[in-house]
Amino acid sequence: MASTDINVKLSRLYHLAQKFNNFYLTGFQKGDIRPFLVEGEQVGLVKADVIKQLQRYPEIFCIRNCEFTNQGIVELNPAFRDYAERTKQVDIVLRDLRSKGIFSALQGWRDEYYEVKSEYRSLLKMDRSATPLFGVRKYGVDINGYVQHPTQGLCIWLQQRSNTKETWPGKWDNMVGGGLSVGYGIKETAVKEAAEEASIPSDLVKNLVSAGCVSFFFESEQGLFPNTEYVFDLELPLDFVPQNADGEVQAFELLPAKECVERVFTQDFKTTSCPVVIDFLIRHGYITPENEVHFTQIIELLHVPLQSLYTYKTLLEQKQKVKQQQNQSQQQSHLANNIKTIENGHNNKDATINN
Amino acid sequence: MASTDINVKLSRLYHLAQKFNNFYLTGFQKGDIRPFLVEGEQVGLVKADVIKQLQRYPEIFCIRNCEFTNQGIVELNPAFRDYAERTKQVDIVLRDLRSKGIFSALQGWRDEYYEVKSEYRSLLKMDRSATPLFGVRKYGVDINGYVQHPTQGLCIWLQQRSNTKETWPGKWDNMVGGGLSVGYGIKETAVKEAAEEASIPSDLVKNLVSAGCVSFFFESEQGLFPNTEYVFDLELPLDFVPQNADGEVQAFELLPAKECVERVFTQDFKTTSCPVVIDFLIRHGYITPENEVHFTQIIELLHVPLQSLYTYKTLLEQKQKVKQQQNQSQQQSHLANNIKTIENGHNNKDATINN
Repeated sequence: MASTDINVKLSRLYHLAQKFNNFYLTGFQKGDIRPFLVEGEQVGLVKADVIKQLQRYPEIFCIRNCEFTNQGIVELNPAFRDYAERTKQVDIVLRDLRSKGIFSALQGWRDEYYEVKSEYRSLLKMDRSATPLFGVRKYGVDINGYVQHPTQGLCIWLQQRSNTKETWPGKWDNMVGGGLSVGYGIKETAVKEAAEEASIPSDLVKNLVSAGCVSFFFESEQGLFPNTEYVFDLELPLDFVPQNADGEVQAFELLPAKECVERVFTQDFKTTSCPVVIDFLIRHGYITPENEVHFTQIIELLHVPLQSLYTYKTLLEQKQKVKQQQNQSQQQSHLANNIKTIENGHNNKDATINN
Repeated sequence: MASTDINVKLSRLYHLAQKFNNFYLTGFQKGDIRPFLVEGEQVGLVKADVIKQLQRYPEIFCIRNCEFTNQGIVELNPAFRDYAERTKQVDIVLRDLRSKGIFSALQGWRDEYYEVKSEYRSLLKMDRSATPLFGVRKYGVDINGYVQHPTQGLCIWLQQRSNTKETWPGKWDNMVGGGLSVGYGIKETAVKEAAEEASIPSDLVKNLVSAGCVSFFFESEQGLFPNTEYVFDLELPLDFVPQNADGEVQAFELLPAKECVERVFTQDFKTTSCPVVIDFLIRHGYITPENEVHFTQIIELLHVPLQSLYTYKTLLEQKQKVKQQQNQSQQQSHLANNIKTIENGHNNKDATINN
């Protein structure tokens, strides 16, 4: 009876995993989704509603079909000279769209830049509020602060976000979390956020354990969230209580694992922070194949293959290679024909067919 | 300098993750891969070389194009009455193929059955040696036995497989591992294998921690390996030494994490056991985003979306639904025409066009 209860309760997890992957699971079937290219590199994905608006800026965005992949693309004008010019031109468009009040995402203008990168270099920066419109991949860090309680077992510290935050105000969230910023490493960001958000002292933060990452693809009215969160675990002493230092958190609460799962299911929990909690509860043996029927499916949905969705350049190179090989084989065919012509002194029609 | 060394060393991990996902990454581009259907459910994937042989048994395997999905399929004859008949008919084919010596996989005949299941029921069983020919998903359990050594840090117990084992003889492997068998639960299998393979006593095995699963899609000369391994961690006392009890292991060795990584890179390590070790080293903070440049890509390759590769039935249902809707809308169109005919007393040609 008890185990049935757990099954029923936990299969809600599968629905939740589908919810924070709503774009991964169904987004590509719902209309025109195009790669966003900068300098030939795919840095994002753009939905039809955004494409429609970008069409009004033809000097800045080229919306066309790629001649090699036969795929619709949105390309930042390749004539722009450098990082600075690309940044400036995109900024002009974003400020114009913002003034027109078309996208709710831009109403949360942050005056804070996000670096848009290809695998190896920064291509431009844009206001953080705009990245969901372009489906730019976002990276963040999260710390699972936890306690092994003598009577209550595994307990987890959660934070409640400040009501004044631009995104997800007042929602419950992981103990510590933040986006990666230019100039900071991944662990460095975790340590910095641990101090700012929860006043974790250096003698505790030295116990941080890197524990992997989660990747998911969520869509809201704000746009697209192809997010990867680097995950750290931090076991805390029983008597430690986190204290906020930067005004971005209004409360902390320590919850037994069971109550933490319930909190995650409520509307009061930030949807895009759920994957980190679920991953933690799986890695620590609280959610298991015995109590969760969709165990393997949920784990797949904590690690969706985002890299396979941003592969325009690879696809293009493959198509170009095939084209090149076809051209070469045509040239060789001509060459072979010419040789045969020379060999037998007259134009051998069969040669064309055989080659 | 030191950190560069680590980077160079660990990026071999990305190559290894690509190696045990060689089929996931490139298999579908290399020729005719067809869903294998039993009772309308996709239970496998069949490559061209196997299809070619199965064509010789047209009363048992139907090789055709699906009229709804327009996709080539391999279907077990739907006329077979039940589990017993399906099992018998497939067994006849497998024994015939084995006697002809066509597939090396069947030379390792096990006289041990594997249950071929859809999501909710068993459809037939076939000899374990044959599952790679049909690309049937395999599930197993693995236990990472480890020690927190006072001077050497994180150390991991590995087993060396017996030279007499049918698969991967003499190779290094995780401390404990085994396939799921009919009638045994997942944790139950882990506990059973822990006793048989490593003589782990019950007072230690009670500390087993479920820690997730890894999924990958490997191809070898034996066929296809779309494998999911349920992963358990077991911290062991410093003075415990595993002892084999079933003759399937010829040695155990305790290695510091650093040496364990090196062992995984050698030809002496069972390729399909590498994902479990890598996942363990990531979860325990040994492989981190700071020392592995392809950290996120490797984690994606430890959790490839196998469920999205076995979705013939879902696809079929979608196509049938679309077809059904088209039929309904045609019927409504006829109905609308008839109504208009009645309304205005003569056959309105425009109605057909507008509907």
